[in-house]
Amino acid sequence: MQFGPELHTPVSHRAAGVVILNAAGDLLMVRENGVPGQRQKAGLWHIPSGTVEDGENPQDTAVREAWEEAGVRVRLLKFLAAYLGHFPDGVPVLRHAWLAEALPDSIFRPALPDEVTEVRFVPKTEFDALYDARLIRMHHTKLFYEDALRERGR
Amino acid sequence: MQFGPELHTPVSHRAAGVVILNAAGDLLMVRENGVPGQRQKAGLWHIPSGTVEDGENPQDTAVREAWEEAGVRVRLLKFLAAYLGHFPDGVPVLRHAWLAEALPDSIFRPALPDEVTEVRFVPKTEFDALYDARLIRMHHTKLFYEDALRERGR
Repeated sequence: MQFGPELHTPVSHRAAGVVILNAAGDLLMVRENGVPGQRQKAGLWHIPSGTVEDGENPQDTAVREAWEEAGVRVRLLKFLAAYLGHFPDGVPVLRHAWLAEALPDSIFRPALPDEVTEVRFVPKTEFDALYDARLIRMHHTKLFYEDALRERGR
Repeated sequence: MQFGPELHTPVSHRAAGVVILNAAGDLLMVRENGVPGQRQKAGLWHIPSGTVEDGENPQDTAVREAWEEAGVRVRLLKFLAAYLGHFPDGVPVLRHAWLAEALPDSIFRPALPDEVTEVRFVPKTEFDALYDARLIRMHHTKLFYEDALRERGR
């Protein structure tokens, strides 16, 4: 064996979400409410996404979270990327995203309304301004958006 | 911003491959030739997979490598997982795999014959014996195989 179990690096936390663009290249985003225990994310913008539950396939997580957070029934078009990060306490997290499209039975309002206050398409210029104002929740969101624009331009 | 660029962990090396099962649950594997510069993998069994090139989507890598290494034209069925590992020198690597099926125009012999000496379905009992004999190239291959069996059993 060339790369044995001693060279495997467990990642304790995984997340998955969707990147949905409209014809203009605007990004579908949700604005986090910040329920009790998660106040630090209140008011920040994010793609529909969430934690991969035990035994769940990340692809299924992405589809589930699109409905729960944004009221969007999705068809996954293509995998975009998985980015590694760390929480401030050093715990590693792997975040996956798929380029997706909204199906006609989408309602574009959260199925779990306590977690999200707003669902809408954000133009690229507004996204960049929100990023500069530190109102985008994660740097990884910017990487996924850039991946999606690149993928659509192929 | 809750998770800024300082919490992003760049991964310098990425790989992607396919897990193809037959009706019996046997795994399609290739036996590595070990071209000059890669002698340490000679004779080891692996899933069809390879390095994600600069600017390449990992999903496209998986499809490309299935043809190059195993002569299989694939349809990707579902994402399985991305596992983090390290090379012996400490460099991180992220390995992605998709559950896939072989399309009718597959030839089941390598399109790049200098890299692979054998392409065939390996039964689970033989896989386990090869793993114990350290003839499977990567521990991650075992994790992907287990993920695929679990996914197919859902």
